[in-house]
Amino acid sequence: MSQLSKVFISHFTVRYAETDRMGYLYYGHYASYFEVARVNALKELGVRYRDLEDDGYLLPVRTFEVNYKRPAHYDDDLEIRTTIREFNGIKILFSFETYRSTELLNTAKVELVFVNKSTLRPCEAPQNVKEILIQATTRP
Amino acid sequence: MSQLSKVFISHFTVRYAETDRMGYLYYGHYASYFEVARVNALKELGVRYRDLEDDGYLLPVRTFEVNYKRPAHYDDDLEIRTTIREFNGIKILFSFETYRSTELLNTAKVELVFVNKSTLRPCEAPQNVKEILIQATTRP
Amino acid sequence: MSQLSKVFISHFTVRYAETDRMGYLYYGHYASYFEVARVNALKELGVRYRDLEDDGYLLPVRTFEVNYKRPAHYDDDLEIRTTIREFNGIKILFSFETYRSTELLNTAKVELVFVNKSTLRPCEAPQNVKEILIQATTRP
Amino acid sequence: MSQLSKVFISHFTVRYAETDRMGYLYYGHYASYFEVARVNALKELGVRYRDLEDDGYLLPVRTFEVNYKRPAHYDDDLEIRTTIREFNGIKILFSFETYRSTELLNTAKVELVFVNKSTLRPCEAPQNVKEILIQATTRP
Repeated sequence: MSQLSKVFISHFTVRYAETDRMGYLYYGHYASYFEVARVNALKELGVRYRDLEDDGYLLPVRTFEVNYKRPAHYDDDLEIRTTIREFNGIKILFSFETYRSTELLNTAKVELVFVNKSTLRPCEAPQNVKEILIQATTRP
Repeated sequence: MSQLSKVFISHFTVRYAETDRMGYLYYGHYASYFEVARVNALKELGVRYRDLEDDGYLLPVRTFEVNYKRPAHYDDDLEIRTTIREFNGIKILFSFETYRSTELLNTAKVELVFVNKSTLRPCEAPQNVKEILIQATTRP
Repeated sequence: MSQLSKVFISHFTVRYAETDRMGYLYYGHYASYFEVARVNALKELGVRYRDLEDDGYLLPVRTFEVNYKRPAHYDDDLEIRTTIREFNGIKILFSFETYRSTELLNTAKVELVFVNKSTLRPCEAPQNVKEILIQATTRP
Repeated sequence: MSQLSKVFISHFTVRYAETDRMGYLYYGHYASYFEVARVNALKELGVRYRDLEDDGYLLPVRTFEVNYKRPAHYDDDLEIRTTIREFNGIKILFSFETYRSTELLNTAKVELVFVNKSTLRPCEAPQNVKEILIQATTRP
């Protein structure tokens, strides 16, 4: 059965605080944009990250990778397109594309792992979350 | 009895990430500089902020006030001079002066309050900390 | 003639990157929220801050003051209400109130000054901007 | 002729502002740590990044990659070990290792490209900088 690619959209306007003296959105701030983008993706799927933490899970980042093609500037309206690429019950891989209108500014990948808040060891995601994430996964 | 003014010194080099597209150290980043400066002041007095939190205290900011005279730029070496201005057992008032060499860039005040981590209500500082802070207070 | 208070509304959702280990929105990050809030207010008045800089003006912060009453937490939806309090052609004073639903979390004031980008000296705002800002000013 | 690996050392103490509600140094803040670490490395080699920009060069990040193994916490003393891995006259690849005492917390790579400030096109580094960087390169 063919599966349609599920893409989640988030919008950002570059804040003055996020620019640097090149006049660019500082390269490190995308980390927080991608975090908002994936939290929005999860929300759209009915999973609130806030609740996950309250239920005893943490979701720290394992690997983070960005390829910058063009810079963003102050007050630019950006669109981040988020896709869930892999999920094995414990680890989840998101991919991101940042656009300014039709221009692709960068692509990124973030791998996170479900961790038990008490033991701080990797663990299986809650059953209902697992089902949702498996459904939402779009292989590249 | 006259009391000598106790001034605590902290040094900072402005990071690229902290500049904005004016080329200035973004005005909001001083909040984290002053936080480091007051934590250093407490450390010099033998009080580790980290231990305070582990012992069940929080020290949130109540009021924050900065007067900017001149901007700082990328890679500038800054010196922040911290003084404890008031302490009544519960609230503590720090004042700060930011210098680049002999040039005064800004002055600031931060008021913090001791809070019990469980009740989230204001509370007296631990007895040993109280004695240290009373000793270290320099009225303006 | 009586003047109605003009209040400009901006919305924010607290990002994970903006929380600290108390679980609070770090007190220093409000600086960037207030900056977005006043840029939004100007946009609503037809003044794009981005254009001001392109036209040779800078608008650095002179004084900044916050009174924190209650903390915000991760994923909280905040509303910042911005008012222009004073404008004398060169300096502009904004006041802010941060709400989570009906709860007032803090109040703040920011004074900015129009600066000529070449001379870096305070200067009069452009004529059309002056007229707009005088109109929009709500005395407390 | 065998070449000894040249490692440049930078020290950081985790700021409160840089923690998140997990109590960890937020994963995105390493970007600014690595930036300080590579600027320090260049300084040690006699190249001031600040001067490079004044001389008409920009050095934006092309790719950024981090592998997180263990989190850092508030007030932790971290050591970042920086190595120059590749340099072809235009692009430069840095690698980083973050340690807390003897514990490896993460590894990272950042690729930057020399860009002409006027044309915004990739360009050769200045001749003296090229010689220094070629000398300092340690292949993995």
